[in-house]
Amino acid sequence: MSTVEHTIKLYNSLKGQKEEFKPLHPGYVGMYVCGPTVYSDVHLGNCRTFTSFDIIYRYLMHIGYKVRYVRNITDVGHLTDEGEDRMSKGARVAQLEPMEVAQKYTVGFHDMMRIFNTLPPSIEPRATGHIPEQIKMVQDIMERGYGYERNGSVYFNVRKFDQENPGVYGNLSGRVLDDLLAESREGLKSQGEKDNPVDFAIWMKARSGDIMVWESPWSVGFPGWHLECSAMSTKYLGQTFDIHGGGNDLKFPHHENEIAQNLGSCGCTPANYWLHANMLLLNGKKMSKSDGNTITPMELFTGESPFVTKGYSPMVVKFFMLMAHYRSTLDITDEALQAAEKGFRRLMETNSILQKMDPHTADFDGSESDTDRTILRLIDEAYAGMDDDFNTAIALATLNELGSYVHKLANQQLDHTEVAPWVLERLKTIFNAFIFDIFGLNDEADGGDDGTVDGLMQLILDIRAAARAQKDWGTSDKIRDGLAAVGIAVKDGKEGTNWTKG
Amino acid sequence: MSTVEHTIKLYNSLKGQKEEFKPLHPGYVGMYVCGPTVYSDVHLGNCRTFTSFDIIYRYLMHIGYKVRYVRNITDVGHLTDEGEDRMSKGARVAQLEPMEVAQKYTVGFHDMMRIFNTLPPSIEPRATGHIPEQIKMVQDIMERGYGYERNGSVYFNVRKFDQENPGVYGNLSGRVLDDLLAESREGLKSQGEKDNPVDFAIWMKARSGDIMVWESPWSVGFPGWHLECSAMSTKYLGQTFDIHGGGNDLKFPHHENEIAQNLGSCGCTPANYWLHANMLLLNGKKMSKSDGNTITPMELFTGESPFVTKGYSPMVVKFFMLMAHYRSTLDITDEALQAAEKGFRRLMETNSILQKMDPHTADFDGSESDTDRTILRLIDEAYAGMDDDFNTAIALATLNELGSYVHKLANQQLDHTEVAPWVLERLKTIFNAFIFDIFGLNDEADGGDDGTVDGLMQLILDIRAAARAQKDWGTSDKIRDGLAAVGIAVKDGKEGTNWTKG
Repeated sequence: MSTVEHTIKLYNSLKGQKEEFKPLHPGYVGMYVCGPTVYSDVHLGNCRTFTSFDIIYRYLMHIGYKVRYVRNITDVGHLTDEGEDRMSKGARVAQLEPMEVAQKYTVGFHDMMRIFNTLPPSIEPRATGHIPEQIKMVQDIMERGYGYERNGSVYFNVRKFDQENPGVYGNLSGRVLDDLLAESREGLKSQGEKDNPVDFAIWMKARSGDIMVWESPWSVGFPGWHLECSAMSTKYLGQTFDIHGGGNDLKFPHHENEIAQNLGSCGCTPANYWLHANMLLLNGKKMSKSDGNTITPMELFTGESPFVTKGYSPMVVKFFMLMAHYRSTLDITDEALQAAEKGFRRLMETNSILQKMDPHTADFDGSESDTDRTILRLIDEAYAGMDDDFNTAIALATLNELGSYVHKLANQQLDHTEVAPWVLERLKTIFNAFIFDIFGLNDEADGGDDGTVDGLMQLILDIRAAARAQKDWGTSDKIRDGLAAVGIAVKDGKEGTNWTKG
Repeated sequence: MSTVEHTIKLYNSLKGQKEEFKPLHPGYVGMYVCGPTVYSDVHLGNCRTFTSFDIIYRYLMHIGYKVRYVRNITDVGHLTDEGEDRMSKGARVAQLEPMEVAQKYTVGFHDMMRIFNTLPPSIEPRATGHIPEQIKMVQDIMERGYGYERNGSVYFNVRKFDQENPGVYGNLSGRVLDDLLAESREGLKSQGEKDNPVDFAIWMKARSGDIMVWESPWSVGFPGWHLECSAMSTKYLGQTFDIHGGGNDLKFPHHENEIAQNLGSCGCTPANYWLHANMLLLNGKKMSKSDGNTITPMELFTGESPFVTKGYSPMVVKFFMLMAHYRSTLDITDEALQAAEKGFRRLMETNSILQKMDPHTADFDGSESDTDRTILRLIDEAYAGMDDDFNTAIALATLNELGSYVHKLANQQLDHTEVAPWVLERLKTIFNAFIFDIFGLNDEADGGDDGTVDGLMQLILDIRAAARAQKDWGTSDKIRDGLAAVGIAVKDGKEGTNWTKG
């Protein structure tokens, strides 16, 4: 029933090794990714995580899977004192409403995801939209003996869970429960009303001042932070599903607690494969607001930051992210971004040249050349890179290698008869597929999609050609300078004149 | 405490007349608008409604109100058989998930609202995200004696409500309960398990096959359609708030039932002012899919419809909507759209000319001319139009009248000394405010916001000027034709050369 021919290997954090991906149901993938908490602007590190999983989503669909991709919005949290200006009290409309804060940052998050040209997930459930499901899960956990109530709050009994499910808690993050217990005995964690400091809340009784609260069998309160992902993944993907993803920093305690909650409520491990995207560094160091070692996406785009010499467009930043495997740390430096900018422009230019090439059918003798074989091998290698734990770095490097053949053809270093018409067609298809469908890049050279810039450039290049034919160097120079002023470079080659926006 | 100096009059459907708007809390406005049902693409009629309320939202903010604008997403409904291809059964991930349908059309709706350049509301609550609130409201209604249970479903007792609150039910829509009862006795409505055919469901027991269901004290089921708006407006705006809006078609039964539910649950009328946007017609007739008399927003943009001779851009369509008061029916015809296109281009061109004008301070004698007085009066009239039930038609017509002074100045039919520098500045400010802030139009002439088109046009116009100075008519003609090919017209005036994209 499956039409998927690729064998995917992925690094499963749960096993600490690469494994062959076997979906629960041939041809279908259920994937859950922990989404943003919407009471502040999305961080650049989050952008990397969501871009990485967007590419995984895109690739799985590209090779034929039907994917249900669920990414939540965490819109309940400690919002009491967050938000914009406080309005006067006394009237509901004049009080601060946490959902206004959630809406503001949800819209901002969606805008940023659009800027990075990521696809919306199949379902985007909100934590506040699933209170009954979370209450039900707390009840299930209590019925199975893993939850206890203290003064209206409910806690998950980690030690009991560990005794009855040995080796589970801490497995994903490489934590040892005894060490966690020892740590907490040393007073690093407050026990409060919990039986044990390692226990965690699954339902919190509201404190005075909490405004996002709901009724429950235990108290007016709100669900524990970890609970929403367990409840929503179960609701939309089932008790057991294929892939669970998120940032590395969520491994502990969030993902450990998720696994404990799911197992604790129904006896099932939620996901078979756990994927974690690695950290973004800035000049070799962890980003941190308090250290001042930080840059926002907008600062990166505008260049308004001491860490960059200029602004880098969203697609350049995305390309920069693609240059590393999602499981590697990625270090933002101005030099690396400059290299990414060149790399991105070059790739887009290469594709533009490639797509304009005509297959040379007239003088084609039907044979398969060494060049043909090399191109076909490289295409396989690009796919093999993605099949190997979605290694975009390898796929990109291979595309660049393929690109060198495009330039050789364009410069007539390589004779056109060396590339069979069908191989050229396949190369065109594969370039478009990787650049636009899989990587989700787009061509920023065109100011809009109505073709105005293309039309104006055609006119300008016509005038330029006429001026040069008449040796009117004044006009030709004026055009060169005018185009440079808007960041457009013109290149004359044997295939004609190309232009790129830099 | 309020900084709002305008006196707004609005047509209150509840009273059937225009009234002065008095917000519950000076300086603040709470506004609820019934949003889309997300299991199909948004209709053009809905686009008109949401655009109308966006302009009301924008205008209230423009004149100084702090507005909380709540617009819901109806994501629970009869989705059982809706959606895309059915996947194979047996596994959760492989079943049709109504929330995938809701997400698809929510994203599509947001995209369309962005195309029309409307602002996101302050809060955008989802019906499925407020099940506990809706269950609570059913309980409150039952406690106050207006709800009864039948086989796991709960119905609102309209007749009892009418007896105890005479004159309320039907008041908004001009319906008489006795007529409704007579109608239903004639067998036009099925009574089913209801005590009375006019009663409506506030909780529905799930039927076999329903998949969006929740537990409740009465049954596993789902809330009645009308309930969500009552529950969500109460949650985010309070039991009584300022403005409730929606399309005319929602007056009955939806808004009548909302009022009954709110009064029935807490004894409060929900909103003080009810505003209704009128219908969009197509060639004089109601749009209807079954009659074939219909056009989608995308068909209107692309021109792929037998009802239009060409495509009209989203801003032209929006401008067309602005040309009528939101309470008037608006008839889409190809001729009217062509007129709107000309009107929109002209307005944008006028503003472009105006914004480039320098105040003539050097030869200004300090006096106030007749022209000054006329301009100031017209500015007041534009605001007066908006203050009078948000009449965009009047505001637009007045802007056009003001525009004639801009053109007279540009053509030197009117001497610059006739307009005092501060009046010119005010005119500039007011034009930008109306066009961009209040109407939410944007300038489609520029292919993108990075200035590429502007930069290229500057270069082309420079070359053109040089060519004309050298009497190089060949180049000049080539430029004219090349620009025409991308829809750009160039106009030489005494103020310099202007260009517009048509």
